[in-house]
Amino acid sequence: MQDITTVAIAQTEIISAIDTVWVSICAAIIFLMEGGFALLEAGFVRAKNAMSIIAKVIIDITFGGVAFYAVGFGIAYGASNGWFAFDTGITDADLGLGLTVSNKLFWFIQLGFAIAAISIVSGAVAERMKVWAYAIFVILFCAVLYPLVANWVWNPNGWLAVKGFNDFAGSAAVHAMGGFAALAAAIVLGARIGKYDQNGKPVAIPGHNLPLAAVGGFILWFGWFGFNPGSTLGAVGNWELIGSVATNTFLASAAGGISTIVYTYFKYGQIDVTMTINGVLAGLVAVTAGCNVVEPGSAIIIGLIAGVLVDVAVIFIDKMQIDDPVGAIAVHGVNGFFGTIAVGLFAAESGLFFGGGTDLLITQATGVFVIGIFSFAVTFIILTILKKTIGIRVDRSEETAGIDAASFGVEAYTTFE
Amino acid sequence: MQDITTVAIAQTEIISAIDTVWVSICAAIIFLMEGGFALLEAGFVRAKNAMSIIAKVIIDITFGGVAFYAVGFGIAYGASNGWFAFDTGITDADLGLGLTVSNKLFWFIQLGFAIAAISIVSGAVAERMKVWAYAIFVILFCAVLYPLVANWVWNPNGWLAVKGFNDFAGSAAVHAMGGFAALAAAIVLGARIGKYDQNGKPVAIPGHNLPLAAVGGFILWFGWFGFNPGSTLGAVGNWELIGSVATNTFLASAAGGISTIVYTYFKYGQIDVTMTINGVLAGLVAVTAGCNVVEPGSAIIIGLIAGVLVDVAVIFIDKMQIDDPVGAIAVHGVNGFFGTIAVGLFAAESGLFFGGGTDLLITQATGVFVIGIFSFAVTFIILTILKKTIGIRVDRSEETAGIDAASFGVEAYTTFE
Amino acid sequence: MQDITTVAIAQTEIISAIDTVWVSICAAIIFLMEGGFALLEAGFVRAKNAMSIIAKVIIDITFGGVAFYAVGFGIAYGASNGWFAFDTGITDADLGLGLTVSNKLFWFIQLGFAIAAISIVSGAVAERMKVWAYAIFVILFCAVLYPLVANWVWNPNGWLAVKGFNDFAGSAAVHAMGGFAALAAAIVLGARIGKYDQNGKPVAIPGHNLPLAAVGGFILWFGWFGFNPGSTLGAVGNWELIGSVATNTFLASAAGGISTIVYTYFKYGQIDVTMTINGVLAGLVAVTAGCNVVEPGSAIIIGLIAGVLVDVAVIFIDKMQIDDPVGAIAVHGVNGFFGTIAVGLFAAESGLFFGGGTDLLITQATGVFVIGIFSFAVTFIILTILKKTIGIRVDRSEETAGIDAASFGVEAYTTFE
Repeated sequence: MQDITTVAIAQTEIISAIDTVWVSICAAIIFLMEGGFALLEAGFVRAKNAMSIIAKVIIDITFGGVAFYAVGFGIAYGASNGWFAFDTGITDADLGLGLTVSNKLFWFIQLGFAIAAISIVSGAVAERMKVWAYAIFVILFCAVLYPLVANWVWNPNGWLAVKGFNDFAGSAAVHAMGGFAALAAAIVLGARIGKYDQNGKPVAIPGHNLPLAAVGGFILWFGWFGFNPGSTLGAVGNWELIGSVATNTFLASAAGGISTIVYTYFKYGQIDVTMTINGVLAGLVAVTAGCNVVEPGSAIIIGLIAGVLVDVAVIFIDKMQIDDPVGAIAVHGVNGFFGTIAVGLFAAESGLFFGGGTDLLITQATGVFVIGIFSFAVTFIILTILKKTIGIRVDRSEETAGIDAASFGVEAYTTFE
Repeated sequence: MQDITTVAIAQTEIISAIDTVWVSICAAIIFLMEGGFALLEAGFVRAKNAMSIIAKVIIDITFGGVAFYAVGFGIAYGASNGWFAFDTGITDADLGLGLTVSNKLFWFIQLGFAIAAISIVSGAVAERMKVWAYAIFVILFCAVLYPLVANWVWNPNGWLAVKGFNDFAGSAAVHAMGGFAALAAAIVLGARIGKYDQNGKPVAIPGHNLPLAAVGGFILWFGWFGFNPGSTLGAVGNWELIGSVATNTFLASAAGGISTIVYTYFKYGQIDVTMTINGVLAGLVAVTAGCNVVEPGSAIIIGLIAGVLVDVAVIFIDKMQIDDPVGAIAVHGVNGFFGTIAVGLFAAESGLFFGGGTDLLITQATGVFVIGIFSFAVTFIILTILKKTIGIRVDRSEETAGIDAASFGVEAYTTFE
Repeated sequence: MQDITTVAIAQTEIISAIDTVWVSICAAIIFLMEGGFALLEAGFVRAKNAMSIIAKVIIDITFGGVAFYAVGFGIAYGASNGWFAFDTGITDADLGLGLTVSNKLFWFIQLGFAIAAISIVSGAVAERMKVWAYAIFVILFCAVLYPLVANWVWNPNGWLAVKGFNDFAGSAAVHAMGGFAALAAAIVLGARIGKYDQNGKPVAIPGHNLPLAAVGGFILWFGWFGFNPGSTLGAVGNWELIGSVATNTFLASAAGGISTIVYTYFKYGQIDVTMTINGVLAGLVAVTAGCNVVEPGSAIIIGLIAGVLVDVAVIFIDKMQIDDPVGAIAVHGVNGFFGTIAVGLFAAESGLFFGGGTDLLITQATGVFVIGIFSFAVTFIILTILKKTIGIRVDRSEETAGIDAASFGVEAYTTFE
């Protein structure tokens, strides 16, 4: 008992220090995911548009980040009436979340979620959207749209939060939110020139640098081990949960990769390696909502389903003549939707398949439906207004020449002399 | 003493929280090393096989990861008779390792070691191995082969562990294990078409994208600062050790780079920059076994030797007409072997050079010999069986055309328009 | 109060464990920034020199790292007379910094700062400097030059430290130090062949692989969330500060990106995406000195100024016929200088704009002037001596052919067959 005499610092300080280390590092890792989005998307588009899509992700981070600082955070995490809040900036107020880290650090990790959500959209609008129209949408999305949904889901008074909606790290609030905005954006923008032939049949436009896309994919995969476990917002009291979340996150991603490999092999006679990267991401997206409440076996099943779902969805979306150059809608929208519902089926305590009845399932379905419809509808309206006013699509000549040269005055690559 | 009154959480909870933060982040960083392997290997091969090798690393992670979850972990860390265990999945049992983190989190960090070991093999079989034959080998390796060795070395009852074998982060269990499997695989597969001329002289087949290989190399270098320090499996009680391990890890890597730079400059009149990346990795591999017990000066000497050893080994292996496109055998096999032995020479307390006699040296040599022979022999047998049954090598036409187009239906790069 | 009975480990051990986790992970992340430097610089130069600049960064790490281990650290952090110290290697002595981590771990994080400083220089000398002359400069820089400045700024007895100089993570000690050495090096070396036409007008030499540069840029951006928050050197007692530093670091980087985007758009009619990456880095460099003492609003203003400053500086330096292929002088020298001064203006308690008078401003200006002049002068002298003796510039034919082929016997890319 002698050691007691060396106690000099209050335990609350120790706890805050531990949780700050955890949240700060996870937030940095989540932040790196923006590099993952940028490089994945750049690799999946044509060389003539590679730098413009990287620029769009930088706009997500910079314009989106400042918008989320100045306006968005207060709407999401201020004193909520269940639907929104009115604070601005980062206050010192108790946010009601039982935080052991500073509000600023909480803001920094939430920032990563906000800019991840908008970066999903950047992929779907690749190769044809005007940069300033995009910047306006980014600001609106990060200042208002995403924060409203975050309020519903993660504010302690949010209407979905109080219903017991389980969206641990954001299959709904981040991925479905971003994915359904991406769907609306792809529809309003229309397809790239040459994407569909005169009979409406899709023409493949392969990515120009798949190893670059793989760099992005590996960064995203890594980032998810900050994204999901970091959503505990602290390690003290959560150490068993963190191990469980990491394990589930891995198993679903692996299962997503495996099912895509097997599915594409049997369907096409060849493993589709581009699709496999998307299959891994689909597994990650799908397990994001429920990684805190499902068993490892369920995580594997969720991943297996996600890996097939993304393949089918990519083909279906393409057939519908909705042009999504990087597969963002299928990966994030479809699997964010599926993953949210899956919690209602697979949750170990209250999921339908585990004897928990339909209550949670109904809540999950309600939440992700509302979020999906909200995201789709508001994005559709905003982009339609922008389309009719300042215009959202680059000129035909610019699109043909490539946005890099036309809007940014650069070429991604000069001669490899 | 007033602060005592705020004590509300048991110290064991605090310790588990700290150690969970440490292990969880290190495990994520180790996981990212898979991206390092994939990109290093992709850069070192020809463009026509770049995506297929990335696919192989994804197979390491996905098929290998699930195999290590379902079967491998229980064989490695279940109740051992000294040679193997029979548990399956991740139990809640006390593994006898004095863990302060959850078994699931321990699984997650061990996963990184298992898939690192198999990823060493993926480099040596590049540009010519059939994907499904490879997938079968991955499953066997991660479900049984690697777990047996991990059992011997790291299970508290493993026969090498009880002898005092010091393989802190796996120069033997991961790198020699992977490297000698790579040697067997390269022999059974045979050389790539055109690798040796009619006189048996090696023909250089340069990597297609060395900056991409450098991306991989830097990721691996970074990852080692999770791999080695993270092998403490906890920070409480280990904080001095962590600083020491990080310092030794860095110094050996730097020394490995320096000696390769100097050696290749004096040997060839030019610094070989590709080899320098391998020299850094060789230093890292070699110090991995002993980074917990050697002095910084010894770490530098180990690195200097490793940096020359890898150069000599690459040339020797090539002369033996064993075709290892990325140098995996020289980096991981030879230096994993050397690094394990080096512990017996340089360990500050019981190494031969520090007055500790030959006991540890003999144990180290015994361990790495057995592991090397086991890995080589079993891999040789498995791949020979696969060769005689389903076949392990792609068709001549496919190899000439490139595996990307033939097996995966993609090209890594489309025109840089 | 019953939990007290489980207290078995002294609180000092707990604190050291927490702080070790924090510093160790931040140090690893800072180390990864070397990959960021290498890839950013490689992308910004021509393909024919891509691997030689990566080799130079590996020399920064390896030769520089060992020099900083054997000599530099003792000069920087030994018992100082205010200007230098004479220790060698890493001792167990109390460094007077109130460290809760081991001296070895403190060395490892300081290593990241030392090799970051020299890596700034590697960019400015790209495409024309002899490798061995560069290696000699690296050794001198990391063994003596940088350690002297670190002594002044961060040694508890350093003459700037005792004056209250606030350079939290090194706008002056790392970035101005590296940036002004880069300026001297670019001047002594002279411009690349073809960089200026016969009328002295700059000719643009675009980077060969901007997506690769973006990989580097994202890694650096990520790394800064180790670099700045990690400079707390511990989390216990600093958890609020860590949140504040992370928020300021992000906001300045975002503002730097935004102001470059807006500035280049209005100035040139096009957003300059290459410059935008530099604008983000400029914001990061500028906030590095004061991220611990400014309000978020001030961080945004600092970033906005930095983002314009870097654009203007790049043009100005180019007009002066100082050839800096990657913009290192403008990013690190100019904004390191600005950022250090900015603390004297924006510090919340003692900055001029916040009613703190001119005391701090004068200290900041004095410090960064002395550091800048010292760095410039000593580098100028050393490189001039090297120039007159062993020579510092590659042959004309080698420069035309590319340093990769001539000095390193490699090509970054072989045919993308």
